[in-house]
Amino acid sequence: MSRRSTPPMPLDPAVLRSRLDRARKAAAGAETDALLIAPGSDLRYLLGEAGGSFERLTALVLPAGDGVPALIVPKLEAPGYAHVPTAELGVEVVTWVDGDDPYRIAADRLGKPGRVAVSDNTMALHVLAFRDAFGDAEQTLAGPVVRELRMRKDAAEVDALRRAGAAIDRVHARMGEWLRPGRTEAQVAADIAAGIVAEGHAVAEFVIVGSGPNGASPHHDVSERVIERGDIVVIDIGGPIPEGYNSDSTRTYAIGEPRDADVAETYAVLQRAQRAAVAAVRPGVTAQEVDAAARDLIAGAGFGEFFIHRTGHGIGLDVHEEPYIVGGNTLELEPGMAFSVEPGIYQPGRWGARIEDIVVVTETGGESLNNRPHELVVLGS
Amino acid sequence: MSRRSTPPMPLDPAVLRSRLDRARKAAAGAETDALLIAPGSDLRYLLGEAGGSFERLTALVLPAGDGVPALIVPKLEAPGYAHVPTAELGVEVVTWVDGDDPYRIAADRLGKPGRVAVSDNTMALHVLAFRDAFGDAEQTLAGPVVRELRMRKDAAEVDALRRAGAAIDRVHARMGEWLRPGRTEAQVAADIAAGIVAEGHAVAEFVIVGSGPNGASPHHDVSERVIERGDIVVIDIGGPIPEGYNSDSTRTYAIGEPRDADVAETYAVLQRAQRAAVAAVRPGVTAQEVDAAARDLIAGAGFGEFFIHRTGHGIGLDVHEEPYIVGGNTLELEPGMAFSVEPGIYQPGRWGARIEDIVVVTETGGESLNNRPHELVVLGS
Repeated sequence: MSRRSTPPMPLDPAVLRSRLDRARKAAAGAETDALLIAPGSDLRYLLGEAGGSFERLTALVLPAGDGVPALIVPKLEAPGYAHVPTAELGVEVVTWVDGDDPYRIAADRLGKPGRVAVSDNTMALHVLAFRDAFGDAEQTLAGPVVRELRMRKDAAEVDALRRAGAAIDRVHARMGEWLRPGRTEAQVAADIAAGIVAEGHAVAEFVIVGSGPNGASPHHDVSERVIERGDIVVIDIGGPIPEGYNSDSTRTYAIGEPRDADVAETYAVLQRAQRAAVAAVRPGVTAQEVDAAARDLIAGAGFGEFFIHRTGHGIGLDVHEEPYIVGGNTLELEPGMAFSVEPGIYQPGRWGARIEDIVVVTETGGESLNNRPHELVVLGS
Repeated sequence: MSRRSTPPMPLDPAVLRSRLDRARKAAAGAETDALLIAPGSDLRYLLGEAGGSFERLTALVLPAGDGVPALIVPKLEAPGYAHVPTAELGVEVVTWVDGDDPYRIAADRLGKPGRVAVSDNTMALHVLAFRDAFGDAEQTLAGPVVRELRMRKDAAEVDALRRAGAAIDRVHARMGEWLRPGRTEAQVAADIAAGIVAEGHAVAEFVIVGSGPNGASPHHDVSERVIERGDIVVIDIGGPIPEGYNSDSTRTYAIGEPRDADVAETYAVLQRAQRAAVAAVRPGVTAQEVDAAARDLIAGAGFGEFFIHRTGHGIGLDVHEEPYIVGGNTLELEPGMAFSVEPGIYQPGRWGARIEDIVVVTETGGESLNNRPHELVVLGS
C-alpha cells in the first residue's frame, strides 16, 4: 500500500534545526514567503526523513518569517515521521484525512503570501493544486534556495560521502569476479548490483555496463549483449549508503587485449584529462574552469567532438545535484562542495571510455573520494 | 549516471497508435491543445517505455489536433528510446543538448496554445519552466485526460494484471516459510521481498509487515519489532511484473492462538465486509457504492470508527491510480476497470487486520485476481 521510504538516519536535532533556520533565512533573502517541501531529498535534508507518497499530499510548510513550520501529512502516513524530532524542531505536525483539502490547510497557515516556492521534485498534481489554493501568490522553485545549503556539505556529510566512495571502490575492486567474456551485460550487472548492496549500500541505484559499441552511448544501461574478448567495457555504478549519501564511480575495463588499435592512445588522453580536472579543483576556481581543464586537454588532442557531455555533477542526497561542472557555470567552488569529475571519450559504433571520481573541495584543493587505479584495467585475459 | 528505467515491454505498435489517437481526441474533448507527458507510467502507456530522468527534460509533446507529436529527449538519453517504434507511431524524436532550451523547443512546436496539460507526475522543475515557456497558456493536469484511457484496461492489460495477481498469490502461499515467531518484521520482509522477485515480479515495490500493534497502523512499513506468539500480522505486498502491471494483495496472519480475545469476531466482520464489497462490483455500480458495501457492514457491526481509510484504489501501471473506491466517487464502473478491495479494521495499540484483493470489472460482475483463502491464516503454531 505504501512505497518503502528511505531508511531513517539518526540525526542530531541541532543539525536539523540549524538547517531549518538557514533555509528560512535563505528564503527570506530570496524574497520568498514560504517553502513547500515535498517528500524527497530536500525533506530528508531538513527533517532527516525523505518520506514518500503517492497521490496524497505530504509537505513541509516552512515560512520564511516567524510563522510556525508545519509538516502536513495524511493521518495514515504520519507514523512514518514518528522518529522526526518535530517538537524539538518547533515543527507542528498537521494531519489530514480523505475529504480534507490539504492545500487549503497549507494556504491558510500562510495568510497572503506574495511568493511561495515549491521543491523542485514536487509533482505537478500538487504544484497546480498549490497554485490554485494560493491564488495570487507567485509560484517559484525552492531548489535555488535549498541548494545553497545542500551544496555546501558539513563534515558529517563529507564523511558520509567518503564512506560511500570507499564502498563503491570495494565493488570496483571485485570486478574481476563478475566481468568475464561470454556473459551478458545484464548478468554482469545483476552480480554488480548484489555486490553494491553487499559492500554497504542501501540499494544499487544504478548499474551501467556498456560493452563494446554500447560503451559509446554514455547513458546506456545494460543489454543482453554478450561480452567478448577484445571489448572495452564502461562500468558506472553507485547508490546511497543507509545514511542517504550516494556513491558514483566509473572505471573502464578491457577484456583481454583491446580489439581496437586506437584504445591505448585515446585512453591515455582521457586519463590525463581526468587528472587535470581533478587537479584544477580548489576554492575560488569556477565550475566551468574545472570543466574546461578536462575539455581543453581532450580537444587539444583532437577528440573534442567525442566528449559529448558535461564534466560532472554535484552529489549528496541526490545522485545529481548542484553544482554542475559544465561550461557556463561561473559558480566559485567552496570547501565542502562535492561533485563528479567524469570526462569520457566515445567512438560511435566501436567503444567508449569514461573515468569518474567524486571530488570534494577542501580548504586548499580537492580530495578524491574514489581511489581505485585510473589505468585501463585488463580483466579476463 | 542514469537511473535504471523500467524494462521495455514489446508492444504492438497498433496498440500504441490507438492509445495516442485516443489521448489526442480526449485532449481535444477537454479543450486542451496539447499534452506534455513526462517519464513515468503515462509515457509507458503511450509509448511502451516509461523512461526515466534526472534534471534534464524528457517529454512527449502530443498535440490535440493535427500537429506532429514529438518526443523531446536529451541526446545522451535518446538510445533508451531506440526500441520505441516512433516512426510507425508518427512521433518525431527531437534531441537536445546542454545549452539548448528544451521548453522553448516544445513551445515552438505548438504555436499559441490556449491550454496545455502536464502529466500529473511532472516535477515542479519542469512544470514551472513549461509555464514560463508557454507564456499565456493555461496550465492544467493531463491526468484527467489520460486516466480516461488508462482506467479502462484492454484484454491484454487485464491478462497482465491477472498474471501479477497469480504471482503475488504464490508469495502469500509461501508465507509459512518466512513468518515465524522470534524473527523481526524486517527479517521477514527481506525474505518476502526476495520471494516477490522469485515468483515473477520485476521488483518488490512494497512490503508491509505490520505485527501486533504495528498492524493497527495501515501505512506502517516494517520495523525491528520481534514477532511474538499471539500476534496478528498484516502482510501487504506487491510490485510490477516485467510488463509493468502491478500486484497488490493483503492477507492477515495469526502467529498461533491470537492474544486478543476479540480477534475472531472482529475478523469475521471484516471478512464479510470484504466479500460484500467484491460482490457489489458490476458495471453501472458506482465506486462509492462499492465502498459503502464494505463500510456499512463494518459500521453496522459497531467497528465504523476503526475502518480509517477508503476501500480501494485503481491499479495498473501504477500501484495507485483511478478509479478510487471512496465515498463521494460517483464514477460508474465499466468492464476493464481494476482496483483493490481492501477494507481493514484497526484496534489502536493492539492489532489490525486487512484483506485485499484486486478485482476487475467484467461484463456481468467482478473477477477477483487474488484467490488465496480469506480466513485468518494461523502460522507458526
